[in-house]
Amino acid sequence: MAFSTTSLMTDMYELTMVDAAIASGTAERKCVFEAFGRRLPGERRYGVVCGTGRLLEAIRDFRFNPEEIEYLASRAIVSDRTAEYLADYRFAGDVYGYAEGECYFPHSPVLTVTGSFAECVVLETVILSILNHDSAVATAASRMTAAAHGRPCLEFGARRTHETAAVHAARAAVIAGFTATSDLEGGRTYDLGVAGTSAHSFTLVHDSEKEAFAAQIATMGTGTTLLVDTYDIAEGVNNAVAAAREAGGELGAVRLDSGDLVAQAFTVRKQLDDLGATSTKITVTSDLDEYSIAALGAAPVDSYGVGTRVVTGSGHPTAEMVYKLVQREGADGKMHEVAKSSKNKASVGGLKVAGRVCDQRGSAAQELVVSAGSWQEGLDYLERAGARPLQVKLVDAGAIDESRIGKAAIAAAAARHEESRAELPYDGWRLSSGEPAVPTKMLDIFEGDD
Amino acid sequence: MAFSTTSLMTDMYELTMVDAAIASGTAERKCVFEAFGRRLPGERRYGVVCGTGRLLEAIRDFRFNPEEIEYLASRAIVSDRTAEYLADYRFAGDVYGYAEGECYFPHSPVLTVTGSFAECVVLETVILSILNHDSAVATAASRMTAAAHGRPCLEFGARRTHETAAVHAARAAVIAGFTATSDLEGGRTYDLGVAGTSAHSFTLVHDSEKEAFAAQIATMGTGTTLLVDTYDIAEGVNNAVAAAREAGGELGAVRLDSGDLVAQAFTVRKQLDDLGATSTKITVTSDLDEYSIAALGAAPVDSYGVGTRVVTGSGHPTAEMVYKLVQREGADGKMHEVAKSSKNKASVGGLKVAGRVCDQRGSAAQELVVSAGSWQEGLDYLERAGARPLQVKLVDAGAIDESRIGKAAIAAAAARHEESRAELPYDGWRLSSGEPAVPTKMLDIFEGDD
Repeated sequence: MAFSTTSLMTDMYELTMVDAAIASGTAERKCVFEAFGRRLPGERRYGVVCGTGRLLEAIRDFRFNPEEIEYLASRAIVSDRTAEYLADYRFAGDVYGYAEGECYFPHSPVLTVTGSFAECVVLETVILSILNHDSAVATAASRMTAAAHGRPCLEFGARRTHETAAVHAARAAVIAGFTATSDLEGGRTYDLGVAGTSAHSFTLVHDSEKEAFAAQIATMGTGTTLLVDTYDIAEGVNNAVAAAREAGGELGAVRLDSGDLVAQAFTVRKQLDDLGATSTKITVTSDLDEYSIAALGAAPVDSYGVGTRVVTGSGHPTAEMVYKLVQREGADGKMHEVAKSSKNKASVGGLKVAGRVCDQRGSAAQELVVSAGSWQEGLDYLERAGARPLQVKLVDAGAIDESRIGKAAIAAAAARHEESRAELPYDGWRLSSGEPAVPTKMLDIFEGDD
Repeated sequence: MAFSTTSLMTDMYELTMVDAAIASGTAERKCVFEAFGRRLPGERRYGVVCGTGRLLEAIRDFRFNPEEIEYLASRAIVSDRTAEYLADYRFAGDVYGYAEGECYFPHSPVLTVTGSFAECVVLETVILSILNHDSAVATAASRMTAAAHGRPCLEFGARRTHETAAVHAARAAVIAGFTATSDLEGGRTYDLGVAGTSAHSFTLVHDSEKEAFAAQIATMGTGTTLLVDTYDIAEGVNNAVAAAREAGGELGAVRLDSGDLVAQAFTVRKQLDDLGATSTKITVTSDLDEYSIAALGAAPVDSYGVGTRVVTGSGHPTAEMVYKLVQREGADGKMHEVAKSSKNKASVGGLKVAGRVCDQRGSAAQELVVSAGSWQEGLDYLERAGARPLQVKLVDAGAIDESRIGKAAIAAAAARHEESRAELPYDGWRLSSGEPAVPTKMLDIFEGDD
């Protein structure tokens, strides 16, 4: 199922609001929208911004072609006048955002979209879908690679999530430090490393485990990874090592996919060593998450294959970010901060400029978020406060920074993440629930009307 | 981002296993693969089969075009011989499955794929991705529509899940009884009802709430739903009713999106009634799930807008189904049941024919799953046991039952679900964790070798 445009990946109300705003004369008011998270799901210590490269592509591809206009007309969703507006729609505003891979905290202004009300509001749904999915996966993945302390993590979760989400989950996992993915479309689309072993069905389709192992080695070489737990594990390990030696080599690795992995890893390591197969590695799979990876830290395991839990955000499948109007032009032609005042969901108004303050040891100590009258005013404040600015310009008057999209952006985002995570204080590495690793200071220096 | 084929939405190991099986001579062995869940996530009382129509399309579109073959060659993932096999790949086997919308239980044989080892194994990942995602959403959605007891549920979750998953989440929600979706691509692709209200940003872009309400009514008519909690709710309700009356009508509905919804619904209902707006309805949103919907059952609420929790499976974003080889041809040319014997993940071998036995009151009492030598043998057994057969033929020697795919299949699946859920015993409607509503009886009547 291929979709030709991102423009209908949109809640209906975005378009009916444009319709009503065109009629009321507010559609062209200058606006500032902001995407942020009110909290970090699961009271985690940090979140990871991910999906930036994808949402820039989504903005680029956000076009109402004749087929889309026809659909809207057939359901009488918008007026003819609004249909004409949409047919000509090209986002011509600016987008600033945290660089992809950057860590973020509650109320960090992860993405800031400026332009007319109409051109900004129609992007709400698709921007949030991408940020919420990809950041949820990257945040979970980052906790796993942190817990793995340098041992490779491999993303094997495609079968446990939507087939297209799987492609982008692979991308997010690699940005957060995973080494490779089993998802071939992810590998192809983003030039990611691909990896795999074999399934129990492969062993079972052969008349014996020995035949299956010999067949796999004949094709994949002795460096392959053999799955040894279809029948008896100890016998499987013997068969595996023997099969490689018959083919004239030492086996690359064995995979364990069931039972108590900590205990088994020790048993199998000893067995391999006793067989003299000291170079044969052990990879483990089977519902791993950041906690089980941490628990396997002392076990003789060489790599982790992670499925369900990474692609579904390890209990938190959405980053829960929202997209809010924070500043807009009024009837007086001036810009006004705006904010919803309803209970539990109060939002903070204003264009926000954000920076990270580090202490003397280079450890992140504060997220400084300044509501300012302009970018320059905010940046000047950050400079005086000694804060590293966190936002980069992603779209300039409709022109997308191409260096942030496609295959090329992945390595930069992964590097950004590694550096940003390394900068976190010790609390950032804790897997337990609790306070964000870095406190956020919100400051309003805007001297406008409100 | 449009993908031209589903063939790379596949774990790499599916293709390397085909490669090794072609070399070892097992690729053409006749096989039976089965998709099932070992358990119902969250110890729910039933699951809902969903995604059948989509996976049939995925099988139809599963083609290795020159671009895919080139990618595989560039990464040396398979041999030239296997690349040739894949270039000619067309699934030519049979697929049986539970009708889309049917309830299922642990070990229900939800999907059965028969053909050669190679042609069946390569479909594993994409089949599971679709079944696991769509069934997770439909299962959550069904619990919500059950808890809503006839009040309309609207799917508003696009922004909290992957943008393409959102399209298919809308489809799954409607199959499980939701009335409409806010996702326009879902609406267009599957001809679903679409719905929406407006966002806080629409109120905030106007100079006052009154102006915003007047603008919305001018375009959408007085039958629209006004969001009344941007500022003060009581004032919002007054403004909303007044705005409709100024336009010469009575307001369709108000939406509440924050705070204690039960208390607010009573307060707002009284206010509306006191204003004489007795026909004005109340729709509620704000992180609803099946439990909060149940809790709102006694409150004067007319419809539920559900976001995050429905599209993310309400705490269980994957149905956790697996795809296992259960029977295959041996070197002796005969069919053998096969099963993995490793701890915790032992599987049950054999081609399985399933039926549902109802008690005298027509209430489902048993899921009867028979491992048989053939479909006919199993069906004969079901008939003698008075069980309604649950599997339908979806693909016949590669020919897909077109009535099961596309827009046309949605209404039938929704009807199947409604009927299947209505047949469950009382326990099926319980939201609490516990035993499946219907116990499964597994029986092996296969008289083959194993």
